[in-house]
Amino acid sequence: MKAEIISIGDELLIGQTVNTNAAYIGEHLTDAQVTVAKVTVIGDEEDIILDAFAMAMKNYDLVIVTGGLGPTHDDITRAAVCIFFQCGLVRNEDVLSDVQARFKKLNRPLSRINEEQSLVPEAAIAIRNTMGTAPGFWIERDGKIMAVMPGVPYEMKAMMTSFVLPRLTVLNSSAAHYTAKSTLLTTGIPESTLFEKLGSLDEILQGAKLAFLPNPEGVKMRITVCAATKEIAESRLDEIEQKIRAAAGRFIYGKNEDDLAEVVGRMLKERGLKLATAESCTGGNIAGRITNISGASEYFERGIISYSNAAKVELLNVDINTITKFGAVSEEAAKQMAVGIRLNSGADIGLGITGILGPTGATPDKPIGLVYIGISDANSVKAVKLQFGDDRVLNKKRATQAALALIRRMLLGISFDV
Amino acid sequence: MKAEIISIGDELLIGQTVNTNAAYIGEHLTDAQVTVAKVTVIGDEEDIILDAFAMAMKNYDLVIVTGGLGPTHDDITRAAVCIFFQCGLVRNEDVLSDVQARFKKLNRPLSRINEEQSLVPEAAIAIRNTMGTAPGFWIERDGKIMAVMPGVPYEMKAMMTSFVLPRLTVLNSSAAHYTAKSTLLTTGIPESTLFEKLGSLDEILQGAKLAFLPNPEGVKMRITVCAATKEIAESRLDEIEQKIRAAAGRFIYGKNEDDLAEVVGRMLKERGLKLATAESCTGGNIAGRITNISGASEYFERGIISYSNAAKVELLNVDINTITKFGAVSEEAAKQMAVGIRLNSGADIGLGITGILGPTGATPDKPIGLVYIGISDANSVKAVKLQFGDDRVLNKKRATQAALALIRRMLLGISFDV
Repeated sequence: MKAEIISIGDELLIGQTVNTNAAYIGEHLTDAQVTVAKVTVIGDEEDIILDAFAMAMKNYDLVIVTGGLGPTHDDITRAAVCIFFQCGLVRNEDVLSDVQARFKKLNRPLSRINEEQSLVPEAAIAIRNTMGTAPGFWIERDGKIMAVMPGVPYEMKAMMTSFVLPRLTVLNSSAAHYTAKSTLLTTGIPESTLFEKLGSLDEILQGAKLAFLPNPEGVKMRITVCAATKEIAESRLDEIEQKIRAAAGRFIYGKNEDDLAEVVGRMLKERGLKLATAESCTGGNIAGRITNISGASEYFERGIISYSNAAKVELLNVDINTITKFGAVSEEAAKQMAVGIRLNSGADIGLGITGILGPTGATPDKPIGLVYIGISDANSVKAVKLQFGDDRVLNKKRATQAALALIRRMLLGISFDV
Repeated sequence: MKAEIISIGDELLIGQTVNTNAAYIGEHLTDAQVTVAKVTVIGDEEDIILDAFAMAMKNYDLVIVTGGLGPTHDDITRAAVCIFFQCGLVRNEDVLSDVQARFKKLNRPLSRINEEQSLVPEAAIAIRNTMGTAPGFWIERDGKIMAVMPGVPYEMKAMMTSFVLPRLTVLNSSAAHYTAKSTLLTTGIPESTLFEKLGSLDEILQGAKLAFLPNPEGVKMRITVCAATKEIAESRLDEIEQKIRAAAGRFIYGKNEDDLAEVVGRMLKERGLKLATAESCTGGNIAGRITNISGASEYFERGIISYSNAAKVELLNVDINTITKFGAVSEEAAKQMAVGIRLNSGADIGLGITGILGPTGATPDKPIGLVYIGISDANSVKAVKLQFGDDRVLNKKRATQAALALIRRMLLGISFDV
């Protein structure tokens, strides 16, 4: 079964509202083994809506429409449905009693325009609205389906869950194939290097699909496998994941919705270790990521944001001669910060980070984007040198992610190299 | 000028990525007096891309395409552009040197697939990429325009700002009416209270539009004025802004893209003052916001993230008896943190914050969402008590914004009350 989603509403076109509805519907149709081939966003204009209906019903088996079902003058989707299916409106007693009950509960008088919301196109089965007043419509015609729902996200979601998805599952149960997917999360390796490390994709994938999705914090790899049954699809997905991990596992910190700060936090907690951070260039971002996780106080002891040299010397015991000789942005300073915060806090692991995030502060031998990260435990202190780009806020995100990745690698005892 | 936006990428159809690009482009085209008539989202499939190009170039004056320009096998937009405009690829030396410079700076070897990103369709002018490697394409044909950009949001945004929008503004300068807009930014006041404070909207607006846009960090007020000329529209906008500021100025910290951290930073810099922060519940978020601003080292001295009680006592001189008697989350602790960080750092202003952000940690008399913020200068120390909701990460954002707003109010000498 192939589908198009049509989202109706001027607010989507002018960018006032982000189209989260289409993402929600796309995700749930995909899970229901329906292939979403297209999303079309149009304004509240009759001609354009009718053209979009005609194109979609011609090309696809299922058309999901949202938006334009409200009670005011600018909502014209119901009228467009009547014109398209050449039918009139008929009062639906179930919907009328839903609307009446709703207004009674809210203790508000029922207005005429709300009462008129119980008028449903003759061609449609009404989808009752448990979260608002406008009903949805389910229309089957010539072996194709159109489902029309309000644009209010929670009203649409309730109709998807209680009506649309269960019906689709029944209609689509003879589907010959099942889709399994997962997303592996990497950091610290560029897209092109990752691509090369994997070697022959055809050999790994054998017909499955792999997409690379880069963002400032790393590259995600989305794997999609289609097979005749759920068991076969999941077993093939598992095999592909294993092959990819064998080639690039050092860079893979998790999958799907995993957060690197949570992964690192879990590892610290399991090992009974405490972490303390000394941040210069990232200005508290690393501690911020770590403390976004509930329960972080079990493994995060303290952080120092040593923005001034005085703070580095007073709070982290960085040697002023080190700063004079090598600079505050140097491998030596990063190491001393890592050791200083560990010893002063009594934590097991100390992290120190110093760099030039830009746009100002570069020197002839120290460009914008240069960052040193030091990490210290009872046995050793190590440092890495990284070079990011020109954008201050992106550099902060990247440096924060790199620092978390470094803690992960230290805890796992794997190499710091790319 | 009428436009269609075409977003290409399987991840958008299956709902893995929400289409924020289309919202960004829609908003900025609208600002540039271009009417966005349609958004189409399709997958990485050649036939479907070519059909969408044909339909869009037939119906609209401007077609903005994003996505599918990366270096890997699943990116086919460039090839589709060549087929659609019946042209080959030609090496662009500017783009090649951009890519080479980027890899040199990042100290990475240039791979063949990255080098091939400098091949540009002959029909196109290259849009250089300052944030990544894939160039964009600008193609004019038969009085119509197609602009193709990467799907990575920050790469696309940089190309929109530096290349696409300036060109469109020149081409579209004969627009018959002019829309002026601005957005006033408030924090520390709920939407309904703000609405009431403004009084009669009809009187203030006289036909202009006002939208309230609430988010976790405050309520934005977007004002839109249409008039025959730019001068009239801007003068009416200015009058409306003045009336709104007269009614609710205490809560308005800036407009449009202003960031409260930048506003506060500018004020500190102008006054020659230094700030130091002592954060418990916000875990470095306040320092993170402040140091996102370039030049923050001129006014931000240091920060302490005193997650443990030991850190509060050792680094901030909080009295252990205060913690025992009133708790680490108390007005007294917040005040002592503010004074302690100010005295220990030698800064002019000290900020202390302590709270329970959840989901765990509530006690019978201290609910989730309870936050105390203390602020201290040479003359006084004050504290405020705030009550937020249940969501940890949202609470962190809200508490951070509230702390910045408090610094602003202290510097301006205005009341801390709502």
